[in-house]
Amino acid sequence: MTNKPKILVTNDDGVTALGIRFLIDIVKEIGEVVVMAPDKPQSGVGHAITFADPLRIKTIEKSDQYAEYSCNGTPVDCVKLAENVIYKGRPDLVVSGVNHGSNASINVIYSGTMAAVIEANIDEIPAIGFSIDTYSSNVDFEPSRKYIRKIIMDVLENGIPKDICLNVNIPYVEELNGVKLCRQAKASWKEGFDSRTDPRGQNYHWLTGEFVTNDIKEDSDLVALKNGFISVVPVQLDLTAYKAMDALGYLESGDL
Amino acid sequence: MTNKPKILVTNDDGVTALGIRFLIDIVKEIGEVVVMAPDKPQSGVGHAITFADPLRIKTIEKSDQYAEYSCNGTPVDCVKLAENVIYKGRPDLVVSGVNHGSNASINVIYSGTMAAVIEANIDEIPAIGFSIDTYSSNVDFEPSRKYIRKIIMDVLENGIPKDICLNVNIPYVEELNGVKLCRQAKASWKEGFDSRTDPRGQNYHWLTGEFVTNDIKEDSDLVALKNGFISVVPVQLDLTAYKAMDALGYLESGDL
Repeated sequence: MTNKPKILVTNDDGVTALGIRFLIDIVKEIGEVVVMAPDKPQSGVGHAITFADPLRIKTIEKSDQYAEYSCNGTPVDCVKLAENVIYKGRPDLVVSGVNHGSNASINVIYSGTMAAVIEANIDEIPAIGFSIDTYSSNVDFEPSRKYIRKIIMDVLENGIPKDICLNVNIPYVEELNGVKLCRQAKASWKEGFDSRTDPRGQNYHWLTGEFVTNDIKEDSDLVALKNGFISVVPVQLDLTAYKAMDALGYLESGDL
Repeated sequence: MTNKPKILVTNDDGVTALGIRFLIDIVKEIGEVVVMAPDKPQSGVGHAITFADPLRIKTIEKSDQYAEYSCNGTPVDCVKLAENVIYKGRPDLVVSGVNHGSNASINVIYSGTMAAVIEANIDEIPAIGFSIDTYSSNVDFEPSRKYIRKIIMDVLENGIPKDICLNVNIPYVEELNGVKLCRQAKASWKEGFDSRTDPRGQNYHWLTGEFVTNDIKEDSDLVALKNGFISVVPVQLDLTAYKAMDALGYLESGDL
């Protein structure tokens, strides 16, 4: 036992992904690390949980300072399993990623990486999701190392307001310009489906999509990324649209 | 073709669930209805989407005023498929549910029912999720009929502010006291796992959990439900915690 902070690492690309190996490499120098990550890619699972199937944990490595596990669950399952079966309590920090692909803007809602972060935050654990804005298979994470390290150290030292977690996105550029606190840009996916017919004459549909935004204001995460800054969006658990209460007053009145 | 509003119905309990059959029964009297629902229960899938597997649509019924389909996707896939493959455009309203089990409080984040609603709202379609606070297999939905109808009619007439959707939860009581606009109560699931050993000597874990809240203020959805009111929480797509920006200023400054 040491006084080092207890850090849980997870992701949604699976335990062998380059991004989580890079993140593990950084946090190993900071704290006592437990890795609990999906045994296969789980991108796009959102905040899915598994209760109709049993979960299984595989021990990959185990020593005093470092333990690594995979499981057959989702990123949210990983956080729940680590808290309850491995720690039997709470780690000091949960980090998720580094995700291959941006989770800026509306992507926070679809993201398994951020679902793990939000899940940890529901349990009042400070939590940070890291994503890099490229799907390149031989991505070079190195330029982001000192920034990721600083963000983690800062959060361990200063804390994050309760009920808030961080969505950190890293532009894929050689020279990073710094870190910017941002708001989630307004955007959406304009979907199409690639509809085909299988050899048995049955139709099937592949989801395709194009990311669309008109939000070009300076304070948005997408603009920060475009300008070479790492974007940090504080994310809240309370989804209530307080500002809409007055406009919706008609729901409480009138005849049935 | 008529001037009736185009209403899309979906859910996460699957197309044969009692709750969606009840909701279909209500909206059939209001508009031109398309049903696109999962072919099997999808509770707890959150905002999952399917892009690594092909999606298939099954036509169950089709006439001028009413069309019913199921698919092998998640609730979010259902909305995307209906918009792109069936409507080739946008319906006037998306309704999801009636879910078997409450989606009040933090459950909004885990809910497939509400994920469909949020997805529709990302595409700027007014959308409402309905859930009833019971898992009883022979649930009597009738007391809620006139309220669900009124909420839908109200929304069609008055609209909902953009970027906001509605999370409606119905207490399971004989006498409903009315409709209340609420905020999302603060709560969490205190998880446990029921850990067992299979006949081959391998460990496995069933997710279990207990819903915990200390939020007993009058304006919360949980308190409204407890008092026999239908709770309506306006839900926003922007998760940015604007209030936390100042406290996190340290992330932008300091040495690397």
